[in-house]
Amino acid sequence: MGVRHTITWKAGTVAEGFGPITPPDATVLAAARERQGRLTKPAGALGRLEDLGNWVAACQGVCPPKQFDRARVVVFAGDHGVARHGVSAYPAEVTAQMVANFLQGGAAVNAVARVAGATVRVVDIAVDGDTDPGVSAHKVRRGSGSIDREDALGPDEVAAALAAGRAVADEEIDAGADLLIAGDMGIGNTTPATVLIATLTGTEPVAAVGRGTGVDDAGWIRKVAAIRDGMRRARPIATDPVDLLRVAGGADLAAMAGFLAQAAARRTPVILDGVVVTAAALVAEDLAAGAKAWWLAGHRSTEPAHALALKQLGLEPLIDQRMRLGEGSGALTALPILRAAVATLAEMATFADAGVSTAEAADPVDIRK
Amino acid sequence: MGVRHTITWKAGTVAEGFGPITPPDATVLAAARERQGRLTKPAGALGRLEDLGNWVAACQGVCPPKQFDRARVVVFAGDHGVARHGVSAYPAEVTAQMVANFLQGGAAVNAVARVAGATVRVVDIAVDGDTDPGVSAHKVRRGSGSIDREDALGPDEVAAALAAGRAVADEEIDAGADLLIAGDMGIGNTTPATVLIATLTGTEPVAAVGRGTGVDDAGWIRKVAAIRDGMRRARPIATDPVDLLRVAGGADLAAMAGFLAQAAARRTPVILDGVVVTAAALVAEDLAAGAKAWWLAGHRSTEPAHALALKQLGLEPLIDQRMRLGEGSGALTALPILRAAVATLAEMATFADAGVSTAEAADPVDIRK
Repeated sequence: MGVRHTITWKAGTVAEGFGPITPPDATVLAAARERQGRLTKPAGALGRLEDLGNWVAACQGVCPPKQFDRARVVVFAGDHGVARHGVSAYPAEVTAQMVANFLQGGAAVNAVARVAGATVRVVDIAVDGDTDPGVSAHKVRRGSGSIDREDALGPDEVAAALAAGRAVADEEIDAGADLLIAGDMGIGNTTPATVLIATLTGTEPVAAVGRGTGVDDAGWIRKVAAIRDGMRRARPIATDPVDLLRVAGGADLAAMAGFLAQAAARRTPVILDGVVVTAAALVAEDLAAGAKAWWLAGHRSTEPAHALALKQLGLEPLIDQRMRLGEGSGALTALPILRAAVATLAEMATFADAGVSTAEAADPVDIRK
Repeated sequence: MGVRHTITWKAGTVAEGFGPITPPDATVLAAARERQGRLTKPAGALGRLEDLGNWVAACQGVCPPKQFDRARVVVFAGDHGVARHGVSAYPAEVTAQMVANFLQGGAAVNAVARVAGATVRVVDIAVDGDTDPGVSAHKVRRGSGSIDREDALGPDEVAAALAAGRAVADEEIDAGADLLIAGDMGIGNTTPATVLIATLTGTEPVAAVGRGTGVDDAGWIRKVAAIRDGMRRARPIATDPVDLLRVAGGADLAAMAGFLAQAAARRTPVILDGVVVTAAALVAEDLAAGAKAWWLAGHRSTEPAHALALKQLGLEPLIDQRMRLGEGSGALTALPILRAAVATLAEMATFADAGVSTAEAADPVDIRK
């Protein structure tokens, strides 16, 4: 699986400023691995939690790592012209209504963020309606174009959306965010997300299309057709990530890609969410090669394209709860596992500290006893 | 898989007082399902989180459910004679040393409990050494017998251990615990746990035996032999759960079984941990039929017997992080997922409250546009 391609995008275009992406600190990673062996548990007994804790330490450049003080979710909201063509179970007006719901704290992302110890920010990138002025400072346009028949964005708009995502990442990191999550809200947004993923992984539409928020059979057939048409337009420019976002993505997807690339450039760990965020991540890795080293896959959604994107990125999700909501809800549900990984590496006593015998200290076995 | 057997144990023996086990409230379950459909998300979009939230509501008998105020882990510590025969990578003295480590807050269970919002209690049921008087009130004996060659316990001892577990559950529930987790600590304890599971599921020893804390190849071979010998002693009394615990279990396993059965009798939800706790759960379901309706499988460990026991109980674990530590650490790592399930069901706005359009309110699609 996967299309081998040479990325044609070069620094000097609109996205100048991502990178170079440097990896998490290998020396600290080694120190964290060594520390795991001294903690009061059998070697490797915490399984993947040990790998996760070591990764956080390497991202932070310090071992033991610090527990996250300011985990932050940014929900990127945007409408898509394709939603007018029957690809979603919901009317497009729901995007703006949900932005208001986020601000009131009534959505799933708000409830799960409270449990996970994270805070939520909403950014209107391209909602097709008016939203609270507090969230519309980065607005690029009202709805992106219907990608089955027209470009999602103009050249200046894709540049503005990438810059908006980058600026939001900078704002959050400058304000102290030590873990970032991107969330999505936009009726119809799984259609462009699936176009991006199917194009970049060389997958036929029917193998990539899911039900999104729960479209019926007739809607699913319309969605497959829209994705097929979008892919026809996307394939010729698939090796240019900026042009791909312009033609077949959308302002919200471009902003998320800029956000994810900039988080990596700023050496800040990210938990990816579902199919829409991961579509943006797939493009962001083309924008800023090596960015994926800073990303963790939070969950596996039920959307087929999500699994395709995760596989192409080489990321194994932490949980699978059959979620398909977006908003960052899957990443937030997984966040406490990362906190547990940090807590064990940072807070557990060593064998020496606790006066606990190690495996090597075992007396010779007398099996005749 | 699984041995069909008729349970011969009857009320009137030592374990009198478990049950009858009544299931979680079906009326509240239905109300919770109905409420999920009114929350501001596509129907079913939270996947398993919806099932989990509904289950908690049914356990509590109220919808919306309440977030857990007092999630409590009880670590049952006990030694096993079989540990003297080379089945573990660690010397038996580690059990008592780890009890001290728990009390100091330096173990994995302590670190993960802090993240998960739970508190930890340690109970010395059968440690082969002296422990803090604060944790030894329920002590049954110093170490259980080596089950490959002798009974783990005497008749009075198994009764005392079951009663201890039941008493601890009562103490915790009376003190306000609204979610219980059993954890285990005992060098060598995966050997009796595997005997119980392999016996009750009709599995050959080699298909059930794991590495425990990380025993080497020679130790693994000794462990298989010990389990084979233990199973030979266990099979004739497999249909009597009390006798099975007496012959091939141990005081800590019996106490856990009593604890898990009593939690169900007291209508208190439980998250199961790894192979040792789940072995006790398998026996507890025979002690108190229907108890498993009150249990959730927290994680899947790397021990082969764990998967066998979960399958027999019909429980699907929430997470798989390749953990194999015990102590309750896997259940605690999964606990925040249950909290997210409760938070979404309890705190999200409804479509009506938030003024968000529902799927049914969508305008007719004009696909010609």
